[in-house]
Amino acid sequence: MANDHSYTDLLIIGAGPAGLMAACWAAQFHMKTRIIDQKSGRTPTGHADGLQSRTLEILDSFGIVDPILRKGVPHTEMAYWALNESTGRIERLKTSASLPGSSVYDQYLLNQGATEQVLLDSLNESGVKVEYGCRAENLTVSDSESETDYKVAVEVASAKAPDGTDGLQDRKTIRARYLIACDGARGWTRNQLNVPVDKNLGESTWAVFDIAPITDFPDIRQSCAISSGDRGSIMTAPRENRLVRFYIHPKGDRELCDDKNSSSNQTLEELVRTAESLMAPYQLRYKYCDWWSMYSIKQQLVKHLRPHNRIFLAGDAAHTHSPKAGQGMNVSMQDTYNLVWKLGAVITGVADPKILDTYESERGPVAAELLRLDVDLVGAYEKDTGASNGVESVRDQYSEFISGLGVTYSSNALISDQSPKGPAKNIRVGRRLDPFSVVNHAEGNSTYLTSRLRSDGSWRLLVFAGDLRQADSRFRLDSFAQSFSKRPFLLRMHRERYGSRDGWLLETILIHASPRTAVELLDLPEIFHPFDDTWGWDYTRVFADNGSGQGRGGAYEGYGVDTETGCVVLCRPDQHVAWIGDMDQTADLDSYFSSFVRDGSRETNGVALAS
Amino acid sequence: MANDHSYTDLLIIGAGPAGLMAACWAAQFHMKTRIIDQKSGRTPTGHADGLQSRTLEILDSFGIVDPILRKGVPHTEMAYWALNESTGRIERLKTSASLPGSSVYDQYLLNQGATEQVLLDSLNESGVKVEYGCRAENLTVSDSESETDYKVAVEVASAKAPDGTDGLQDRKTIRARYLIACDGARGWTRNQLNVPVDKNLGESTWAVFDIAPITDFPDIRQSCAISSGDRGSIMTAPRENRLVRFYIHPKGDRELCDDKNSSSNQTLEELVRTAESLMAPYQLRYKYCDWWSMYSIKQQLVKHLRPHNRIFLAGDAAHTHSPKAGQGMNVSMQDTYNLVWKLGAVITGVADPKILDTYESERGPVAAELLRLDVDLVGAYEKDTGASNGVESVRDQYSEFISGLGVTYSSNALISDQSPKGPAKNIRVGRRLDPFSVVNHAEGNSTYLTSRLRSDGSWRLLVFAGDLRQADSRFRLDSFAQSFSKRPFLLRMHRERYGSRDGWLLETILIHASPRTAVELLDLPEIFHPFDDTWGWDYTRVFADNGSGQGRGGAYEGYGVDTETGCVVLCRPDQHVAWIGDMDQTADLDSYFSSFVRDGSRETNGVALAS
Repeated sequence: MANDHSYTDLLIIGAGPAGLMAACWAAQFHMKTRIIDQKSGRTPTGHADGLQSRTLEILDSFGIVDPILRKGVPHTEMAYWALNESTGRIERLKTSASLPGSSVYDQYLLNQGATEQVLLDSLNESGVKVEYGCRAENLTVSDSESETDYKVAVEVASAKAPDGTDGLQDRKTIRARYLIACDGARGWTRNQLNVPVDKNLGESTWAVFDIAPITDFPDIRQSCAISSGDRGSIMTAPRENRLVRFYIHPKGDRELCDDKNSSSNQTLEELVRTAESLMAPYQLRYKYCDWWSMYSIKQQLVKHLRPHNRIFLAGDAAHTHSPKAGQGMNVSMQDTYNLVWKLGAVITGVADPKILDTYESERGPVAAELLRLDVDLVGAYEKDTGASNGVESVRDQYSEFISGLGVTYSSNALISDQSPKGPAKNIRVGRRLDPFSVVNHAEGNSTYLTSRLRSDGSWRLLVFAGDLRQADSRFRLDSFAQSFSKRPFLLRMHRERYGSRDGWLLETILIHASPRTAVELLDLPEIFHPFDDTWGWDYTRVFADNGSGQGRGGAYEGYGVDTETGCVVLCRPDQHVAWIGDMDQTADLDSYFSSFVRDGSRETNGVALAS
Repeated sequence: MANDHSYTDLLIIGAGPAGLMAACWAAQFHMKTRIIDQKSGRTPTGHADGLQSRTLEILDSFGIVDPILRKGVPHTEMAYWALNESTGRIERLKTSASLPGSSVYDQYLLNQGATEQVLLDSLNESGVKVEYGCRAENLTVSDSESETDYKVAVEVASAKAPDGTDGLQDRKTIRARYLIACDGARGWTRNQLNVPVDKNLGESTWAVFDIAPITDFPDIRQSCAISSGDRGSIMTAPRENRLVRFYIHPKGDRELCDDKNSSSNQTLEELVRTAESLMAPYQLRYKYCDWWSMYSIKQQLVKHLRPHNRIFLAGDAAHTHSPKAGQGMNVSMQDTYNLVWKLGAVITGVADPKILDTYESERGPVAAELLRLDVDLVGAYEKDTGASNGVESVRDQYSEFISGLGVTYSSNALISDQSPKGPAKNIRVGRRLDPFSVVNHAEGNSTYLTSRLRSDGSWRLLVFAGDLRQADSRFRLDSFAQSFSKRPFLLRMHRERYGSRDGWLLETILIHASPRTAVELLDLPEIFHPFDDTWGWDYTRVFADNGSGQGRGGAYEGYGVDTETGCVVLCRPDQHVAWIGDMDQTADLDSYFSSFVRDGSRETNGVALAS
């Protein structure tokens, strides 16, 4: 049965950014994954275009951020303009630099299709193909108790017959252990399961277009919030290939809004004329339009991100809102980035399914904050007359959320319940790690410690051992290593991989604060340079502090670690900090893992792995 | 006749790094290019693996450096080891940081196949396919005087019949206006033309292998020069995927050298044992070998890089030498990088063919210096006993050559004859520009001015206009623009493109030293924001100085330009500085172009463009 290709460990419905991120992540684990989409191919262009710093960090952790940085436009400044009622002209109120944030990446702007293409290229290298033109038509979930059973059954049909007609359709059933529904705002899966939705937040109507503008408006290559008083507002963002994204939110022009089902050029021209009237006295013309749309957005949030223990909702299927803050694609991709490593650990038999509860407990508050931000921001645009600076103040208030860097998960099965001020003063449990500089001990090149935290499924134990020239520090490190090797869960995670994939369950990484010449790598405890029969010793796990004044500063200074006492920081596969402790707390650390890591063999997963 | 696909403007023989670079460059111009290679595909792995800083800058200028930085290993340090005769052990003498240089890129190490793949991917996007399995068999050159004639005829044959046998071969003749021979050390083209070669420089025998080493040698992840006294020497370099490149140069072990025709595993194992004996007391084992070879290298240099006015030799076809300094692939790619934009300008009718003389006058001295470096370095390895530090001293002496950043072309038809201390104190005529920081005026993001100098065929006129809040500076800029627009060659180059390709002949770029808010871009002279009917104004040509303390420092400080006087710097399409002048010297600048740019229409090129 398991050899039938219609059985899969994970089925993903929807190949937008959330679904593609899910599939890229799933490809890191030794399990069977399928991803279907009723569309005939990726988003061609337009649609979501904002990429948070955090999203770029995540793409970097998969090694695929470069094409986006090369094609996209950094969001560097935000200019605020408002109507001067006495002159009838809009005037620049101020220009704010976008906050530097704690990431090496700015926020970027690029059409959604280009971002999808980067994920598709990565999937292609993993040998995974999106099954386009495949529409889900029926969903059933069996009551079987067995954990390895394929409880989810989705009947699918070709969206088009091979000859392109809607005629004869090839129907089949895909059975899956787990289902992730990334099927968008209309939420087919959500509707199949009658998931309740909180819909009473608000609604707004938008016009959006990506054009090559011909304009004398001086800030056309910056992100702008333009308030034209009672007449409405405009947001602009500079884009790739000389394009600019415009959002128009007219007030009182119901005719325009009522036109939204029309897709004639007439309507686009009307929209541009409306935008021009809101930008008076500046002219706005265009010859090339890359994409445009008009739509109403209901702000809504599902009541359950996990409506069934085998089914998860992510992205627009879980939360819809306005495009005001450029958040949608980011929160959507981060939903599945949060989820899939947990599913990978469960499906490959490493972790107990109870860790899957953390998807809802971690992403639910993020979705709720996203909706709060949107309600506040839409309200500010509605009310803003320029003088109140409402938009800017909302953006400031949510700046860490808008960059994606501030997301901090509360304590749960995977985030230890610890006071915020531990032995690493600037590291916060539940939050992703900031980038600080270290030197690769063996090779001598400077790098950010965070760039070592690749998305391959590994947990990382960062051991800040202090200055190893000091006998105390060296003794403490040796004691740590001895103790580590006696802890059953730590040892197992140190020695095992997820099925046959590259990633270790746990990588031990040492950051010392000594001159590199004072320490020989092979003299360090073996857990920091494990040996492989074919590949020899691993030289990628030992780093020296880079001191202050290097890039964003050295790691000890940046993370607030005392070189006298050292400390140990555990990062999850999604780089969020799970636990911080002293070097003698290996028992505590082992206990952290023992609460969800399965002991013994992975026999329970035999069916899936045998396939 | 010109429509027959066997007629091409440019024929490239050989699809190694030099040939692929030539084809990538040629794809930027509106002309027909073919590239053939008798091999069945790209280099799989191994071979050349050193990438200079300058080579990475060039790849960046094509937008394709990212995969190399992600896959390759930076060359950060060089460790020197030598035999202590009294103990019989090798000992570390010192570790030197590789010089920071003036590039944003370190030197990198990566197998040649990966570099070729990056170029192939870029070619593929341009719609150019390498014709693999196509062997040149006969070369004739007609005596026709007409410049547009297809004077070069190369008879080619399929290296293999479609069924893979050497049987029936498909022969045809390719006629080309120009031929670049990148056909390697054996130099088929060179031999066809009986080009004399200077062969008496020296010869050395090498063994090379790329293995995943299993060793307790502590510096295995650094570049090492290991001198084992009378017994020989080793060079190592860290590589991608846990590989290390080893070069062995045994002395006195003639048996090993005589074995070089053997390719059994036996011989590889002998080589590794020899390496281990040279590294005593350290162990060296391996299970995985990625590539290995033994070969003798004759140091040789052709007497003419342009043996016929339509035929150019580049890369190994022009110069061969030892792999000691990791230079071969770099100098080879830079040969064609130097040549092809000139050919592009000639073939598209922009420039007089006399500029092609500069290929030999610019690259000949580079090839000669390459051979001098190699002779010196091989000599140092031969003689070095550790105490003399001969290898390090040769590397120091040639450091600017080894990084590729020091190459400076002497005055010729394309490099003006100017004293080195002009109005930009730190810019040297004939040399590529250092990277210093500027801010994009319209978008507000920081960037290196050099990253604006993309390889699309454009010349760039960098206008350092000073602080535009000062009436003097503003007046000087307006005067410059007025004067510019009255100079016939400048105006033509400002307004025209190479055939239908994207690149302008000349881009005017303004770098001012004012706060961005004090200057509105559209108030500046129109040559700095030319208008396009479809795409509107060009917002990519105006930059503000970034002040000191930003990255490598701001542009005015870095380039040594006085904000009171300003200056104008002309960069060629290969980023080398051609001319530096004051802002009132447009006549001189126009005269520079008038000496080789063709006036009037490009009718002379009708045959090629019509195809």
